Amino acid sequence: MPFYDRNNIFARILRGEAPCTKVYEDEFAFAFNDIYPKARIHVLVIPKGEYVSLVDFSQSAPPEMIAGFWRAVTKIAERLGVADGYRIGSNVGPGGGQVVFHFHVHILSGPRT
Amino acid sequence: MPFYDRNNIFARILRGEAPCTKVYEDEFAFAFNDIYPKARIHVLVIPKGEYVSLVDFSQSAPPEMIAGFWRAVTKIAERLGVADGYRIGSNVGPGGGQVVFHFHVHILSGPRT
Repeated sequence: MPFYDRNNIFARILRGEAPCTKVYEDEFAFAFNDIYPKARIHVLVIPKGEYVSLVDFSQSAPPEMIAGFWRAVTKIAERLGVADGYRIGSNVGPGGGQVVFHFHVHILSGPRT
Repeated sequence: MPFYDRNNIFARILRGEAPCTKVYEDEFAFAFNDIYPKARIHVLVIPKGEYVSLVDFSQSAPPEMIAGFWRAVTKIAERLGVADGYRIGSNVGPGGGQVVFHFHVHILSGPRT
């Protein structure tokens, strides 16, 4: 498992040290607009914990946190008014296009921009 | 929540009533090759339960099942030899491009085909 860098940009956003446009927060998850939106709606959802990737999160986090995180993803889509149609995705590892090494899920809806 | 049709193609695959190229199976998940691969590796992972979509699964399944399912997704990528780089995604709802209404996650790796 790669090293978790506590100064990655999403960790800094989570600690309030870097700016973001927050769209949701609960016990398990924090969500904000992607600064380079690839669709009309493009939100990033991150867990409140130090997890490098989907692998690290899925294999290391407690079941209640995993369930709470994915419930949050679907609740965020409802709040955004896109519950009837959206896409979720996550890039895993450098070869999979992952750039920030704090696990994050993309929520995309509407035409690609 | 939309109606779960027990005769959807993935339910039939899960019951062994329709053919597939199986790549993984455990207590929580079943995986097989997508018949229309969009990348060199394109596997579909489905939960062993009647869940229409990511929403239904995340909001209705027990935490242990949600955690077990996502752990399976990452284990499958390891078995496929792509743990260092892949993408996961799921289309939610008709407006999100979902076609089969049994929750499924795409694992994609390698060049798009």
